Amino acid sequence: MKFVLATIHSEPFIGLLYGEKIIDLNKAEQEIFEITSFPRSLLECVTLGEKFVQDVVQIVDKIKNADGHEGYVYSFSDVKIQAPIPRPTKNIFCVGKNYREHAIEMGSEEDIPKHLMMFSKAPTSVIGHEDEIDPHLHITSELDYEGELAVVIGKKGKQIKEDEAMNYVFGYTIINDITARNLQSQHKQFLIGKSLDTSCPMGPYLVHKSAIKDPYDLSIKTKVNNEVRQDGHTKDMIFTIEHMISTLSQGTTLEPGDIIATGTPAGVGKGFKPPKFLNPGDVVEIEVEGIGILKNKIIG
Amino acid sequence: MKFVLATIHSEPFIGLLYGEKIIDLNKAEQEIFEITSFPRSLLECVTLGEKFVQDVVQIVDKIKNADGHEGYVYSFSDVKIQAPIPRPTKNIFCVGKNYREHAIEMGSEEDIPKHLMMFSKAPTSVIGHEDEIDPHLHITSELDYEGELAVVIGKKGKQIKEDEAMNYVFGYTIINDITARNLQSQHKQFLIGKSLDTSCPMGPYLVHKSAIKDPYDLSIKTKVNNEVRQDGHTKDMIFTIEHMISTLSQGTTLEPGDIIATGTPAGVGKGFKPPKFLNPGDVVEIEVEGIGILKNKIIG
Repeated sequence: MKFVLATIHSEPFIGLLYGEKIIDLNKAEQEIFEITSFPRSLLECVTLGEKFVQDVVQIVDKIKNADGHEGYVYSFSDVKIQAPIPRPTKNIFCVGKNYREHAIEMGSEEDIPKHLMMFSKAPTSVIGHEDEIDPHLHITSELDYEGELAVVIGKKGKQIKEDEAMNYVFGYTIINDITARNLQSQHKQFLIGKSLDTSCPMGPYLVHKSAIKDPYDLSIKTKVNNEVRQDGHTKDMIFTIEHMISTLSQGTTLEPGDIIATGTPAGVGKGFKPPKFLNPGDVVEIEVEGIGILKNKIIG
Repeated sequence: MKFVLATIHSEPFIGLLYGEKIIDLNKAEQEIFEITSFPRSLLECVTLGEKFVQDVVQIVDKIKNADGHEGYVYSFSDVKIQAPIPRPTKNIFCVGKNYREHAIEMGSEEDIPKHLMMFSKAPTSVIGHEDEIDPHLHITSELDYEGELAVVIGKKGKQIKEDEAMNYVFGYTIINDITARNLQSQHKQFLIGKSLDTSCPMGPYLVHKSAIKDPYDLSIKTKVNNEVRQDGHTKDMIFTIEHMISTLSQGTTLEPGDIIATGTPAGVGKGFKPPKFLNPGDVVEIEVEGIGILKNKIIG
């Protein structure tokens, strides 16, 4: 199941991918079951957890017997897709240097971390698929992309054991961890250089975990203006998702809707000699296998 | 004006310090003006901004003519004080190494930052005055205190100039930036070591900026079991509050209720030889001149 938060005629709804179409789950529920129990935010759906997923399964069962021309089935061109969680209730948790070759391209072998490195991005930085990225030219000429698989937490928990960690995952999305490299290094701690407005493109879909057989068997590709820059694979993560959830939750309560960006593979702009930073007008596309393609243009 | 978020008989209200007493502003407004316009969270009051402050001035004017025995005036012993903003809408912004002598005690002269260093604490870490701190003994034996003046933002803004920055401040409170030193250094980026549940005692008051003549003329004292550990002064900040607001807002939109902890002076536990970390049963008190005393005990 691939969920989407979208608007049609400026009205928000939660959608489900259905072949090349999108089912408006709010409208479908109303027409098929004559009730309106679904929230209009994916954050609330995630908080409902398994109950929400089961209700959607029931809807889809009914729709299989429909003729596909119902008023609750839209074409992509009819809707505007939002970030799955446009305003997280806290900063986005991000893992730094979680791919060996990326750690090396950022410095040297010494940059390969021995322990999980986590920083955060302010929730004001989130934008959706096809929203535009502000280059912030007044403070940086070193804007960089980082294509990442992101995990969305589905259940509150603390001191979660690694072998139970996946029970706390609702699903996955894609994050472009846009970074102003000059600010990242100047300010030592990464927060400022990672929290620019529009620096957290997210989406397009929130994919339920049941649709991802193995999160460590996914290719991650980032293209800038159609040139492949990152061509990585989640099997190369240094620290697993289970390790992230367990380590963080040893002291910090995780909540539904929390987002963990799991780190980026090699091929960021800073890693090239000379560096290939982002410029106004550039188009960045991140494809994570089984999740989708997140596409954003730099304003200009 | 010193505001407080508190509960009486488990009902939340916003209070105003009135000598040795607390005025229940919600009840006072109702009894005096026969309206109920005040929210019951300081976050919402801060968002209302100047309008809220002016309304409170009107209430206080009326109360001057009252005899002091009204039903909306409580003793401290009647109420339970909460953190002024118990659940910020994003992580707390924190400035690292903003006092020269503290930077040196954390390492050497080389640790004195040339640029603002900012990290964050998860909003789940916030507790109030006299709430207890979990020592998290299963993951740290190096729990440390950091007494800090904290700024609460009152107005949305981006690219704020230094000479206009104070217009965006609502007021001040105190934060104890509790830190697990082993996790802070092990994970390189500070987020994990700074985000333990209960690691952000805040309060007791949110003091309106009009009550603080000069934020750079305040002593900061931290005592552990009555032993003075930190005896600093805000005049010694390396980076000013104006600089913090301006630098951060160059790329990141600030919002009402955002909190910036401005850094801690010398005298943290890690700075002593041998270190003086916190132990179960310890009582930490932070006094910032003109703001109040924030007191918390370590569970045990």
